[in-house]
Amino acid sequence: MSYDLVVIGGGPAGYVGALRAAQLGKKVACVEWERAGGTCLNWGCIPTKALLKSAEFYHQMHRAEEFGFKIGKIEFDFEKIMLRSRGVSDQMAKGIEYLFRSKKVDYFVGRGQVTSDKKVVVTAADGSKQTLETKHILLATGCTPKTLPGLKPDGKKIFSSREILAIREKPESIIILGAGAIGIEFAHFLHAFGTKVTIVEMMPRILPVEDEEVSDLLGKIFVKNGIEVLTNTKVEKTEITPKGVKITTSPAAEGGKAGTFEASTLLVAIGVQANTEGLFGPGVAPTLDRGFLTVNDRYQTSIPGVYAAGDIIGPPWLAHVASYEAIEAVEGLYVPGRTPHKVTIFPGCTYCSPQVASIGLTEKKAKEKGLKYKIGKFPYKASGRAVAVGEPEGFVKLIVGEPHGEILGAHIIGSEATELIAELGLAITLEATLDEIHSTIHSHPTLSEMIAEAVLAARGGALHI
Amino acid sequence: MSYDLVVIGGGPAGYVGALRAAQLGKKVACVEWERAGGTCLNWGCIPTKALLKSAEFYHQMHRAEEFGFKIGKIEFDFEKIMLRSRGVSDQMAKGIEYLFRSKKVDYFVGRGQVTSDKKVVVTAADGSKQTLETKHILLATGCTPKTLPGLKPDGKKIFSSREILAIREKPESIIILGAGAIGIEFAHFLHAFGTKVTIVEMMPRILPVEDEEVSDLLGKIFVKNGIEVLTNTKVEKTEITPKGVKITTSPAAEGGKAGTFEASTLLVAIGVQANTEGLFGPGVAPTLDRGFLTVNDRYQTSIPGVYAAGDIIGPPWLAHVASYEAIEAVEGLYVPGRTPHKVTIFPGCTYCSPQVASIGLTEKKAKEKGLKYKIGKFPYKASGRAVAVGEPEGFVKLIVGEPHGEILGAHIIGSEATELIAELGLAITLEATLDEIHSTIHSHPTLSEMIAEAVLAARGGALHI
Repeated sequence: MSYDLVVIGGGPAGYVGALRAAQLGKKVACVEWERAGGTCLNWGCIPTKALLKSAEFYHQMHRAEEFGFKIGKIEFDFEKIMLRSRGVSDQMAKGIEYLFRSKKVDYFVGRGQVTSDKKVVVTAADGSKQTLETKHILLATGCTPKTLPGLKPDGKKIFSSREILAIREKPESIIILGAGAIGIEFAHFLHAFGTKVTIVEMMPRILPVEDEEVSDLLGKIFVKNGIEVLTNTKVEKTEITPKGVKITTSPAAEGGKAGTFEASTLLVAIGVQANTEGLFGPGVAPTLDRGFLTVNDRYQTSIPGVYAAGDIIGPPWLAHVASYEAIEAVEGLYVPGRTPHKVTIFPGCTYCSPQVASIGLTEKKAKEKGLKYKIGKFPYKASGRAVAVGEPEGFVKLIVGEPHGEILGAHIIGSEATELIAELGLAITLEATLDEIHSTIHSHPTLSEMIAEAVLAARGGALHI
Repeated sequence: MSYDLVVIGGGPAGYVGALRAAQLGKKVACVEWERAGGTCLNWGCIPTKALLKSAEFYHQMHRAEEFGFKIGKIEFDFEKIMLRSRGVSDQMAKGIEYLFRSKKVDYFVGRGQVTSDKKVVVTAADGSKQTLETKHILLATGCTPKTLPGLKPDGKKIFSSREILAIREKPESIIILGAGAIGIEFAHFLHAFGTKVTIVEMMPRILPVEDEEVSDLLGKIFVKNGIEVLTNTKVEKTEITPKGVKITTSPAAEGGKAGTFEASTLLVAIGVQANTEGLFGPGVAPTLDRGFLTVNDRYQTSIPGVYAAGDIIGPPWLAHVASYEAIEAVEGLYVPGRTPHKVTIFPGCTYCSPQVASIGLTEKKAKEKGLKYKIGKFPYKASGRAVAVGEPEGFVKLIVGEPHGEILGAHIIGSEATELIAELGLAITLEATLDEIHSTIHSHPTLSEMIAEAVLAARGGALHI
């Protein structure tokens, strides 16, 4: 079998790159060892959003009286909630498999290995092998969760973000190591259904990459809701006990906590590592940097003709960045005269409640860079739409460069933050000025009006606060 | 009492204009005959959004099983739902009154009359009068719903959009005349709680200003849900009966229906008329056009020094347009060198379910104008986020100019359409090209990704369909 492009990896970089190349008329194969859609679709972004929807739903139902309702006993079926989430993943994965067929991408289920710059060997689960000849290769095998010594995920007491999506019973209690987006989303989800949650984070704040004000507010809300949050705290020792897990902590900085904490389960959410094991045959050794593939401006690895995109080329390990890189790599390869873009700015989202979304610099980063800036802030509680729908918690915060008024960063915590951030992404791409955003009429009553108000705040005064 | 600016009308044009002038250091009075916030906040946009939230909530609860829940009997208290909505309006109106105080706008409750270009007389409910001297006047008295002969709203059988917000009992059945945003939102709300709803519209489709494909889909959904929709139909005769109301209809065009229809109540939602009655004293007669005040490029009426903004200067009768005009009028008046913008493009939203939002040209309008265009369309059902949250109905449709790829119009029907439209507003303001929107990385998984996919569709092929 002979191809223009063989893609190894069927996640947001791999399948998107394969589809784009097929759209451009190329003969393409996509090799995936598990299921089309990769981690994102099967064990990440998509199934967690289904779970978080159920959490939101459950929380909402408890507010029924406020909106004029009386309802009987509310019971949840944890297994059903988990199974719905699996069903959503299954439906989306089938969708990708359908796209492969309709766009004529050959889909191989097996482990792909690059044996030369023109050859990929696919080993199926039964050990049978196929060799694919190809003009080019795109590597998009992604990452897997990092583990800790002595805490190998067993799917019973110890989980990574993957195994925990396969549980069918609600854990009685859980210790979550790492307060990034993944840790925070699982903390929110499990707490919503009554699991006792303890979060342990070495950094001073949960969601440490977010703006300090956003992280602070979310931290306060989590604590108020009854989640135990240990920041500035590191894990010294972990033990598996008959009942579950026991950890011993010490302060990583002032405010950290020394103590022992026990729970029936533990989730390790401390980052990811590159999936390169077995990816290269003898003599094939592209340059790596801390385990990740190094690529040039055209997404080419150190081996000519072999490209890479997505998590495998390093942070930020986000599905939307991965897809974007894959499209750029493929268009750079096949569209004459096309210079691929590299990713410089991208949004990040956490789908807890309230939602968190951001793009660009935090205030702290702007300060560290010595940039001149001003702040435009607007609270949800002053938005008519937020009050009408009963979601008055949160704020929009813009970091605005001086003297030109460009958006350096945007930070939103509150209802629908993950959708609202899109406008600010476009504003940054197009280098919109404050005046241009203000002179864009925002619908009333919407949450997006808060963006226009935050612009006014940065210009000297919002109207509605 | 002597002012720089007296504003007559406390709605989205009036109060916003007053606040903006105060921010600019002017001595300002705002005269409002009823309640700060005007129709929008007290009898329009805001209270309806509260009601529609309850409708959404009620609908969602009936889907509980799908998301993993079992709940007992769901009962609603219609009065409580209506009262929550009044409470939201009250809270927001108090907010405006607080802003008046904090920004030092003098707030007069009474009917304002312009007796000269420098004088406004305020008549309070008790008949007492105060005369305000002023350098400039801003008229922002807005509109009231149009009525029909023999159908004067009585708050019992006959309603305009105002009286219906004051009901405390769910109508058994209702005939809604007019299928614009107001008629459609009340149809959705009342139907959700079991009122038998009949919509009568002279035009061929409900939401006649929206893109035909959007109106068609919404019409199908309404009919499927059990709402009776009579389009191309005009009312020939109306009678008040002991039990309610009876109308006789005839076809306005092919497909229209001749018949008689009875219901316990009737809502007239056929448009608005300008509030100019009693606004001008003897000898003060600014130019009107079909009842609306005519203004020049600086929002000045035919009387020098007397400005006007908002619904009173004519369509599109939208709160966000009104506020924008008022800001522009005031900044044009007080900011040296500032040329006020006139409104050329604005979004429109209908908060039924699924939501509808649009900006710019419909496909039909683009065709009528003889423009060269292409279409980019993407369905909600192919969005991972839409599937994960159980909202797979709807689509994003872009009308894209050829050969430059500018967005001529954007149309969204589906979950959160009213928030998603904001990005497209900015895209149009900034004359973003398809490439610029595509190269803005959209978060995964969000609904806003559909905008990037619709862009790809317009460029020749979306990835996920």
